[in-house]
Amino acid sequence: MKKSKPIGVFDSGLGGLTVVKQLTRVLPHEDIVYLGDTARVPYGSRGEQIIKHFSEENTNFLLGKNVKVVVIACNTSSAVAADYLKDKFKKVPIFEVIDSAAKDAVKKGKKIGVIGTRATIGSGAYERDIKKYSKNVKVLVKACPLFVPFIEEGELKSKALKIIANTYLHNIRLAGVDTLIMGCTHYPIIRSIIKKELGSNIKLVDPGVSVAREVFMFLKDKGMLNDQERKGKKEFFVTDLTERFTKVAEMFLGEKIKSQLKKIELSK
Amino acid sequence: MKKSKPIGVFDSGLGGLTVVKQLTRVLPHEDIVYLGDTARVPYGSRGEQIIKHFSEENTNFLLGKNVKVVVIACNTSSAVAADYLKDKFKKVPIFEVIDSAAKDAVKKGKKIGVIGTRATIGSGAYERDIKKYSKNVKVLVKACPLFVPFIEEGELKSKALKIIANTYLHNIRLAGVDTLIMGCTHYPIIRSIIKKELGSNIKLVDPGVSVAREVFMFLKDKGMLNDQERKGKKEFFVTDLTERFTKVAEMFLGEKIKSQLKKIELSK
Repeated sequence: MKKSKPIGVFDSGLGGLTVVKQLTRVLPHEDIVYLGDTARVPYGSRGEQIIKHFSEENTNFLLGKNVKVVVIACNTSSAVAADYLKDKFKKVPIFEVIDSAAKDAVKKGKKIGVIGTRATIGSGAYERDIKKYSKNVKVLVKACPLFVPFIEEGELKSKALKIIANTYLHNIRLAGVDTLIMGCTHYPIIRSIIKKELGSNIKLVDPGVSVAREVFMFLKDKGMLNDQERKGKKEFFVTDLTERFTKVAEMFLGEKIKSQLKKIELSK
Repeated sequence: MKKSKPIGVFDSGLGGLTVVKQLTRVLPHEDIVYLGDTARVPYGSRGEQIIKHFSEENTNFLLGKNVKVVVIACNTSSAVAADYLKDKFKKVPIFEVIDSAAKDAVKKGKKIGVIGTRATIGSGAYERDIKKYSKNVKVLVKACPLFVPFIEEGELKSKALKIIANTYLHNIRLAGVDTLIMGCTHYPIIRSIIKKELGSNIKLVDPGVSVAREVFMFLKDKGMLNDQERKGKKEFFVTDLTERFTKVAEMFLGEKIKSQLKKIELSK
């Protein structure tokens, strides 16, 4: 009975759909409920207390949808609110992208680069988690704040983006980093641009892939994998809805959104 | 007595400080109370109801500070919520950047370009207001969504920004626009880049200048100009405060912020 419950995923916005994409690959038979807090995006520039508060509201919404696990797709929430949520909601297993990606990265390389938003990098969460899993690695971090607006604007082939990428990744390239964590839900969209800058030998870690594998292993171990024959259903909820959302959402998800995005209200 | 009351200014974030800069130039003896709703910035991607609601809360805060007039520095609020606020708060004169800039632009040119965020351009507010003041002008609009992130990152000399500006302003240049409204609080910061793209003959309208002049004329007419000898005091309130704010605020204001930014809470 428990098996058939959906997986809950939340993000500050729509970028977390790149995580849903990976969950769908690894766990094609699972139903997924997604919540994007688009009315209050971006979390990255907000203070810690308010991020915890928003994350708690998001988790409560997903629990109301009777999910069997919660995945924090948002890097900022993962950095700031994961421990708080795990402490608050002891009955539901909570997964988050940063811990999963850190665990993956130390298996792959010795000189690990991390790129992300200003908030994620500033939090130091990736360095902390990487060091938790291995003391013998070097970590180099770099905030790349202009990547998100370029991606959200769909300006993926712009020469300007290549110039920005070249500038941001300059020191990581010089340092001879062997493994790079794409520490923002948006970055897998520009994977090829990043790879071009750093050379084809670079090992890229997509935290969406890492957390999807971890959720798979957990559900398998616990005998909680959904054994239905049909493919999983997806439901998408957002806290604010404007015209461009569906288009942007489909870019992140990498497929057409069949059911509509549904607008809901978390608090007044 | 009424004369000595401050001027109230609100914006969704810190960009409205470019409007404060112009108010200070035109009205150096006026005290100013500024509210930047940084906890809920950006308004541009939000729905209409929520923008009205936020704008009403901002206005209420300023009225609590006993202001003699309210200036809406935010283009999105001006586009979406100005009429709503004027209707709701009949006792205080409310000024807004779009109407003021439109009035100015029709005095200057016949072929008027307007650049702004996706939300401002999408609202059609500039076209509507320009047509209200003159039927005999052509209007060409263009959303320039990547300008704001470049400016907020302080990436003003980046070659990438020049490429973006060239792309965004291409059609406006080709159309032979004679007057351009910089329809976003941030854009005066890249005035020289815009001017370089469009040639030195282009007449630029800074809505901050337009609204500052209009407020000046109004206060003068009503005998409400502050006649104190000292320079006006400024107070800055924000709804969320992070480390980078003071630096970004000083870029927009064009001067050091002597008093601290004060964090306040508008609603839970």
